[in-house]
Amino acid sequence: MTVLNVDPSPCRKRVKKYVKNACSVKTVKKRLPIIEWLPKYKSEYIIQDIIAGITVGLTAIPQGIAYALIAGLPPEHGLYASLTSGVVYVFFGSCYNVTVGPTAILAAMTARYVSNYSIDFAILAAFLSGVMILVMGVLHLGFLVEFISMPVISGFTTAAALQIAASQLKSLFGTSGSSGNYFSESVYNFAINIKTVKLWEPVLGFSTVGMLLLLRKMGQGCNRTDGIIKQTRWFMSLSRNAIVVIIGMIITYILKVTWDTEPLAIIGDIGSGLPEFTWPPFSTTVRNETLSFTDMLSVLGPGSIALPLVAILESVAIAKAFAEGGRIDATQEMIALGLCNIIGSFGQSMPITGSFTRTALNHVSGVVTPAGGVTKVLLIIVALTYLTSTFYYIPKASLAGLIITAMFSMIDYKILGRLWRNSKRELVVLSITMIVCLFSGLEYGMIAGIIIEAVVLLYNVSRPTVTPNVIKTEKGDIMIVPLTESVSYCAAEHVRKAVLKAASFISDTVIIIDGTNLNNMDFTVASNLMLVVKDLEKKSKLILLLNFNLYLKNLCVDIDPSSHNKFVYAENVLDLPEAFPKSV
Amino acid sequence: MTVLNVDPSPCRKRVKKYVKNACSVKTVKKRLPIIEWLPKYKSEYIIQDIIAGITVGLTAIPQGIAYALIAGLPPEHGLYASLTSGVVYVFFGSCYNVTVGPTAILAAMTARYVSNYSIDFAILAAFLSGVMILVMGVLHLGFLVEFISMPVISGFTTAAALQIAASQLKSLFGTSGSSGNYFSESVYNFAINIKTVKLWEPVLGFSTVGMLLLLRKMGQGCNRTDGIIKQTRWFMSLSRNAIVVIIGMIITYILKVTWDTEPLAIIGDIGSGLPEFTWPPFSTTVRNETLSFTDMLSVLGPGSIALPLVAILESVAIAKAFAEGGRIDATQEMIALGLCNIIGSFGQSMPITGSFTRTALNHVSGVVTPAGGVTKVLLIIVALTYLTSTFYYIPKASLAGLIITAMFSMIDYKILGRLWRNSKRELVVLSITMIVCLFSGLEYGMIAGIIIEAVVLLYNVSRPTVTPNVIKTEKGDIMIVPLTESVSYCAAEHVRKAVLKAASFISDTVIIIDGTNLNNMDFTVASNLMLVVKDLEKKSKLILLLNFNLYLKNLCVDIDPSSHNKFVYAENVLDLPEAFPKSV
Repeated sequence: MTVLNVDPSPCRKRVKKYVKNACSVKTVKKRLPIIEWLPKYKSEYIIQDIIAGITVGLTAIPQGIAYALIAGLPPEHGLYASLTSGVVYVFFGSCYNVTVGPTAILAAMTARYVSNYSIDFAILAAFLSGVMILVMGVLHLGFLVEFISMPVISGFTTAAALQIAASQLKSLFGTSGSSGNYFSESVYNFAINIKTVKLWEPVLGFSTVGMLLLLRKMGQGCNRTDGIIKQTRWFMSLSRNAIVVIIGMIITYILKVTWDTEPLAIIGDIGSGLPEFTWPPFSTTVRNETLSFTDMLSVLGPGSIALPLVAILESVAIAKAFAEGGRIDATQEMIALGLCNIIGSFGQSMPITGSFTRTALNHVSGVVTPAGGVTKVLLIIVALTYLTSTFYYIPKASLAGLIITAMFSMIDYKILGRLWRNSKRELVVLSITMIVCLFSGLEYGMIAGIIIEAVVLLYNVSRPTVTPNVIKTEKGDIMIVPLTESVSYCAAEHVRKAVLKAASFISDTVIIIDGTNLNNMDFTVASNLMLVVKDLEKKSKLILLLNFNLYLKNLCVDIDPSSHNKFVYAENVLDLPEAFPKSV
Repeated sequence: MTVLNVDPSPCRKRVKKYVKNACSVKTVKKRLPIIEWLPKYKSEYIIQDIIAGITVGLTAIPQGIAYALIAGLPPEHGLYASLTSGVVYVFFGSCYNVTVGPTAILAAMTARYVSNYSIDFAILAAFLSGVMILVMGVLHLGFLVEFISMPVISGFTTAAALQIAASQLKSLFGTSGSSGNYFSESVYNFAINIKTVKLWEPVLGFSTVGMLLLLRKMGQGCNRTDGIIKQTRWFMSLSRNAIVVIIGMIITYILKVTWDTEPLAIIGDIGSGLPEFTWPPFSTTVRNETLSFTDMLSVLGPGSIALPLVAILESVAIAKAFAEGGRIDATQEMIALGLCNIIGSFGQSMPITGSFTRTALNHVSGVVTPAGGVTKVLLIIVALTYLTSTFYYIPKASLAGLIITAMFSMIDYKILGRLWRNSKRELVVLSITMIVCLFSGLEYGMIAGIIIEAVVLLYNVSRPTVTPNVIKTEKGDIMIVPLTESVSYCAAEHVRKAVLKAASFISDTVIIIDGTNLNNMDFTVASNLMLVVKDLEKKSKLILLLNFNLYLKNLCVDIDPSSHNKFVYAENVLDLPEAFPKSV
């Protein structure tokens, strides 16, 4: 039997490796993955990629329009976002089944700036988020999202779903008044306008919801590789978003043509044609006032940190879900995502990230390479060029139903029960995050959650378990104070007090501070420990430091040279009293 | 041999105990310690307390004046601070040798507000600091200062000493121009006015420094209980601050009377008499502009957090140094300190805290009870009532020499070498703290240091050691991944990756995640672990979770019920292959 150590390559080696790698052909291929997969492309992939592209495209178009409306933008900006990011991701994306584009959460986080200021803020937010994501990717700072715990993510997501759903109440019920920036505001605005509820809007809206649920159910148990009937059910189920919107559109069109009435609110004019390629707005005019770049930055405020964080978070979650234990090049994904946003902002795109629903769709549709995105892009180009006059008739109530249905699936109900049963503390964190999100805005809730978790974590680190044991031997009592693997500066005082308290319990003992497990302590801890040794010696107790490693011993001796004879080494603490007879 | 567990009383018990205690006679005595010690006062204590009071008073008066000048206040405010806090501490103080009053660092931190706005800000700062300290004391939040590591304290203290010394260059050399708010500004102002250096100011200033060093040396080896000569040397050494100031005062007086010249800058008029007792300034007028309470708060900004933190820090450091391993009632000390500041602010006092030098003086002078403070207070009353016209002649250069000498001893040179040899990372933290303090102000440097340490700590917590081992047995390979005592949400992804990486090294193995040491993991970690189990099963590896405690097992099973048969228990990992034959 041999024991073999597998892992850790030391830091210096990694740096060398990194520098060496940065200039190799392999790195160029890594950074521009299309060079890698395109030459290996096989003709049999085409059909599968096209099918996947069509299903994704048929969802991307209604979702793009819907999410633009969530953000308060003209519908074409959602399509622009899917278009440019789709093109960029074909070149830079490393995960074949990930689809990028506008998402409901990013749209909701952008909405406030658009409704309070102007469209320009959504485009600038895309540019800035892109820059942040790119920089974080290059500097390998993606790990920062690991500081967002699952309760915080869950509270945030639930709040986002509720906020988005609440913002659609107006369209779903056809009420008048404005919709509101937060959940609480939207609900309040809906409540005070409740008397203006129309008849046909909720009928269409709820029918849409019902239809979507039916269509989803219809596809269950069906597969891409089944017979023709099941295959049709499967395809209809996957294209359900497009289907309900087309049905809504047809109904409004017929009403218009046959009775010349427009009883339903429709989305109206959509800017036709491809987006112009121009600089993102680095200054803007809002209500006759010119805002400079720094003014705009201060308006975006915490959003300029929260948006890229959420974008990374969403794409990391997707990569984790679809990698199935395989390795993901997180750096490359962040670079791709950053470039999608930056280049997108030149094409008037709203902020984008990986889309969970469309990636899942891509996956079940059997996509093989990132080329699947090409079909999606072509579909969107067709839509923008020829179909905008048709889209004119899309009823807002259909989109509201579509959005609200999507929000159902975003809420994770199970986590509430699990936390209730296992960790009420984390349930509190989830609740606080959610409440702040609902009442002050999503970005503040997320930041509050991160801070609360970090503070709790720091507090826990500052209170390591120190459980002194007394061993009664024939020669007298020994008190053993075992230290944990790592003791940080903030735990120094806690450890000091614990040792002094332990020492005060029984007089006339040998006290052994057991550093067998201790790997790491900083200067503050070492200084405090030397203080304890001195204080206890004044009370004429014999104090010994057991099995401290050489580095830690040197640190202590450097602080207090007289401590050098306190360090003892033994496999079993019971061997000690023989070696160090009680001299006190 | 029996093993006996000493420590932990669970949280609920402690709360009960706390509530019960809050209403007892013991608590009243604890909160008003004078009730405890005064009835037990013995006549033989009087002499010792008086001697200690005189030596401390003889230092408190020149230091009070000097520190008021550091803060840019009229000299009497320093004396007011010593006076009111001295009275309050006699009633509420629980450490017999601690002396409170103005300190150089607090003075330096107040200086900016006084020079940029007005005196009122110093008094309001005292009031607010008092409230903060009192609240933190009552809520047991004193542990917050444990998050200030020694490198940060050291960098901060050194920067404070340098800043204070630099602010005295003007008085020491008699240069014109203003002194400056930060170290960098003071040095710059001194440099551009270097041509205005006078002759007699530096002569007196440096003589003062020399005299102080000589007097200190003179007292070495002498003791309060020695013969009359040694006793005199001891007393002169302890009163050296008063002696040099009196000598300077006599010189200026003689020059004035005999030649009718005033070649040296003197402190001039001092407000005579005791301070009026009135409300602290909750609004003020600066340059004809009225500032409300909230305006004043926003001016104080980070200072309103940093000042009380530093005040607590100084008094904690003192208590630790003079408690000699005894227990300190930290809550009571904070309550006393808070009340000293609050009540002080009604008597136009500047912010106060425990003074290291005067506490040391009190200690070596043989103080027995807090009554020692009474003599000090009487001396200050005499000074304020009868001596202010004498103090008129105190030369600024003498005070500058006195201050600069005190600053020498505040800098801890040794820590630099120790950190260089043992922990360069902490040396960097110290340096950054110091640089930010020197160039942007003390409060910003301290906050920067705290944040850097917290971020590094969080990063370390997110990267626990995960070192997988492969054990080769006759039946095949087993890979063991041991987890540390505690894994937090931010380490979830790291652990996930480590396990997946370990699994990818050798195909066809049993993977055992060893939770023997694991005490604690949160929901995020458990979820990630269940994800790993699923991912590895898809790659048809046998994965087992060894020795997870019941709570953690329940958490995992709640997240993924199918995992319940993965949990195994064994003392030795080698017993496992028999029990779980390789079924993959």
